[in-house]
Amino acid sequence: MGIGKTKGTRKRFPFLLATMRGISQVFLIGNWVTGLLILAAITITSFKLGLMAFLSAAIGTLFGRLGGGHPVSVERGLYGYNPMLTGMALFLFLEGPVSWGIALFGAAVSAAFTASVMRFLQPAGMPTLTFPYIVTTWLLMLSSYKFEAFKVTDKLVPQHLSDWKLEIAGEIHWLSAFLDGAGQIFFLQGILAGLLLFLGIFVADWKMGLYAIAGNFIGMFTAYILGGEHTLIDAGLYGYNAILTALAVGVVFRDGANRLSLYSTMISCVLTVVFIGSVDTILLPFGLPALTMPFALSTSIFIGARLMMR
Amino acid sequence: MGIGKTKGTRKRFPFLLATMRGISQVFLIGNWVTGLLILAAITITSFKLGLMAFLSAAIGTLFGRLGGGHPVSVERGLYGYNPMLTGMALFLFLEGPVSWGIALFGAAVSAAFTASVMRFLQPAGMPTLTFPYIVTTWLLMLSSYKFEAFKVTDKLVPQHLSDWKLEIAGEIHWLSAFLDGAGQIFFLQGILAGLLLFLGIFVADWKMGLYAIAGNFIGMFTAYILGGEHTLIDAGLYGYNAILTALAVGVVFRDGANRLSLYSTMISCVLTVVFIGSVDTILLPFGLPALTMPFALSTSIFIGARLMMR
Amino acid sequence: MGIGKTKGTRKRFPFLLATMRGISQVFLIGNWVTGLLILAAITITSFKLGLMAFLSAAIGTLFGRLGGGHPVSVERGLYGYNPMLTGMALFLFLEGPVSWGIALFGAAVSAAFTASVMRFLQPAGMPTLTFPYIVTTWLLMLSSYKFEAFKVTDKLVPQHLSDWKLEIAGEIHWLSAFLDGAGQIFFLQGILAGLLLFLGIFVADWKMGLYAIAGNFIGMFTAYILGGEHTLIDAGLYGYNAILTALAVGVVFRDGANRLSLYSTMISCVLTVVFIGSVDTILLPFGLPALTMPFALSTSIFIGARLMMR
Repeated sequence: MGIGKTKGTRKRFPFLLATMRGISQVFLIGNWVTGLLILAAITITSFKLGLMAFLSAAIGTLFGRLGGGHPVSVERGLYGYNPMLTGMALFLFLEGPVSWGIALFGAAVSAAFTASVMRFLQPAGMPTLTFPYIVTTWLLMLSSYKFEAFKVTDKLVPQHLSDWKLEIAGEIHWLSAFLDGAGQIFFLQGILAGLLLFLGIFVADWKMGLYAIAGNFIGMFTAYILGGEHTLIDAGLYGYNAILTALAVGVVFRDGANRLSLYSTMISCVLTVVFIGSVDTILLPFGLPALTMPFALSTSIFIGARLMMR
Repeated sequence: MGIGKTKGTRKRFPFLLATMRGISQVFLIGNWVTGLLILAAITITSFKLGLMAFLSAAIGTLFGRLGGGHPVSVERGLYGYNPMLTGMALFLFLEGPVSWGIALFGAAVSAAFTASVMRFLQPAGMPTLTFPYIVTTWLLMLSSYKFEAFKVTDKLVPQHLSDWKLEIAGEIHWLSAFLDGAGQIFFLQGILAGLLLFLGIFVADWKMGLYAIAGNFIGMFTAYILGGEHTLIDAGLYGYNAILTALAVGVVFRDGANRLSLYSTMISCVLTVVFIGSVDTILLPFGLPALTMPFALSTSIFIGARLMMR
Repeated sequence: MGIGKTKGTRKRFPFLLATMRGISQVFLIGNWVTGLLILAAITITSFKLGLMAFLSAAIGTLFGRLGGGHPVSVERGLYGYNPMLTGMALFLFLEGPVSWGIALFGAAVSAAFTASVMRFLQPAGMPTLTFPYIVTTWLLMLSSYKFEAFKVTDKLVPQHLSDWKLEIAGEIHWLSAFLDGAGQIFFLQGILAGLLLFLGIFVADWKMGLYAIAGNFIGMFTAYILGGEHTLIDAGLYGYNAILTALAVGVVFRDGANRLSLYSTMISCVLTVVFIGSVDTILLPFGLPALTMPFALSTSIFIGARLMMR
């Protein structure tokens, strides 16, 4: 999570650069060019969604600054990525006249939540990851059942687990599934968006790019071998969490040389896929999406273990 | 959470005063007069409930003393408020021959739980709030489904979220709704009870009284604007959590001058209302009441953020 | 959790002894003879299950060694008991061609999870207990609803709480129920298995044996008095969690002489029984077994309280 090679420009637009780095931190990267490429991928898919992503990341960064967050953390974008994802998710999953406002409110709450989770996990030295985004989004989506001003999109329907019947049939287009693996982190589908996102990772660090590709493959194939729903694999929904896990466990939080670290990265990606099934099942009665919880769970297990065992 | 102006009497009835302060700590206040006014508000509504409140607070305080809790914590009433609320809630929500005993048992468990949560949150310096009360009450209510000796009142019925239909129509009597906002913290409704409770807060600290009023207003109006159920607003159920959040975020845990603190207090009250909807929705399939979880969640987010960012 | 009187043999088969101690740590005991007796009890009931138990405990111990766990922790078996229980539970509750592989995978994950939970709870000094086993097992069982390669056994069926009707009638054979109380910790039933397990505890420490007996009695009778289902009492399902609580709260984590410790042990066993009802109720819609969660919850409350109040 280095600040990247931005020494020159940094002084001129510090807030804008911190916001861009906030966007790039979804990939656990602190690089404003990566952030710009991510924002481009979102904006070409939906201009409104791109605007929401930018505003939400900016709210988070602003909160970090005015609220008194550690300057280095703010500059690295650590206050931006959770609000950004929260704003995007709420904007997409909520309907109603004030859903736009709820999304921005959620982004602000997510910023405060980020600081709170940082504090909570500080004594154990464990990373915040995307927990604030996930919990804020779930809670605000659930609250919609009790207020008329906003409601969850009809696409998300609460179901009984006892009625659940697994049907895995469906065609898989492996190439688009692969590219959508990167896209789905930001709720995107499409070849160009996927290419821009992978480019964003490679621009920051080619090694991270390779890990992202490997994580994506492991995610898709594990789901296929275990007999996961082909429609979900096809949509990239078994890849995106594994990409993040590969970046986090494989590169960012790997300090020192441990002979087990390559194996543990692979196992953590497989576990992420299994956890997608777990989280989806738990959320079935509530009609909520898994978001990046499988990544956050799997990564916490492996990072926590490394912290304990070094 | 000062000990209040009780220097003189303190030596004569230390246990009784600590118990009264325990009752007042529900408002995050350590003042035996406030505790007495709260107890009066409960007792005029229901003598049995008043007795249960007193006994539960006393059990908690006794546990703190005999168990070796920090003397200052015990004296301030920090071991009393969670047991008191637990005893009251279980007494009201459980039926059956031994429900009285389960309530007192729950109060004792809640006292131990309080110490345990204190310990768990100590490294991060985060406050215990009412988590022990909420979790103990929920778990003991849920256990009633598996034992014949006690059962949950028929008023609380598990429902499917997929069958849930929001109907907000209903009349709101704003004045009684306002007074019930204070009452509902203790499961009370009624003008006199409400007046005694607000008096109790003002007696301890007029500034806290103003914050309680403001929090109550923000709670009611946010719920109204977002289209919450009028029957719930009318019953004070959208005010009581916001009152506690306003006291906690606005006064008690505000150290130092932060230019954002007034805004963050207001946002925390709005968030509390949104969280009432979230918690109610999550609990729907289990037929449980939200209790003060929305307050505890919202407050933890904002207090944690301040601890991180000072 | 002493290492026991194994000075002589320790040097010859260190890995095997650590694995056996890992098995014995389910009883919070670090004694390879106890581990051997437990393994015997499992193996005479089902050879396959015994093999799975041994392999899972070995995987955990291996992970602790290669991964760089503290040598004393590894030697005491602290990396073995969670994987062992996870492997056994998944092997029993999952069906399908790869369920055997999922069980061993779960054991490995549980080992990493153990280290992670250790780290997470380290600042507060709270014990890991069986949380990693419980959470890993639940999550992997839930994931089976989304993959064709493995599924949960038909014996576990998701139910609606709103359809739940308590029927407690049934015969109780107190003696076999008593012996099954020890057996059910390892999913066993049968007189010989029960006798071997109690023998295993007494061999390590006769005082722990007495506490196990007392905990078992308190568990069964509390469930009976509260009106729990006789079929569950008869199967030993109200005893096994209370045995573990009695060992943990009554013996292992009791440091120093506290006049309340005997009472708190008894209360913690009663609370464990109540929590069995709570956890069963929460898990009803997901069709999951309570495993040792009631023990882990109740024990955490009382151990945490003691840490806070000493």
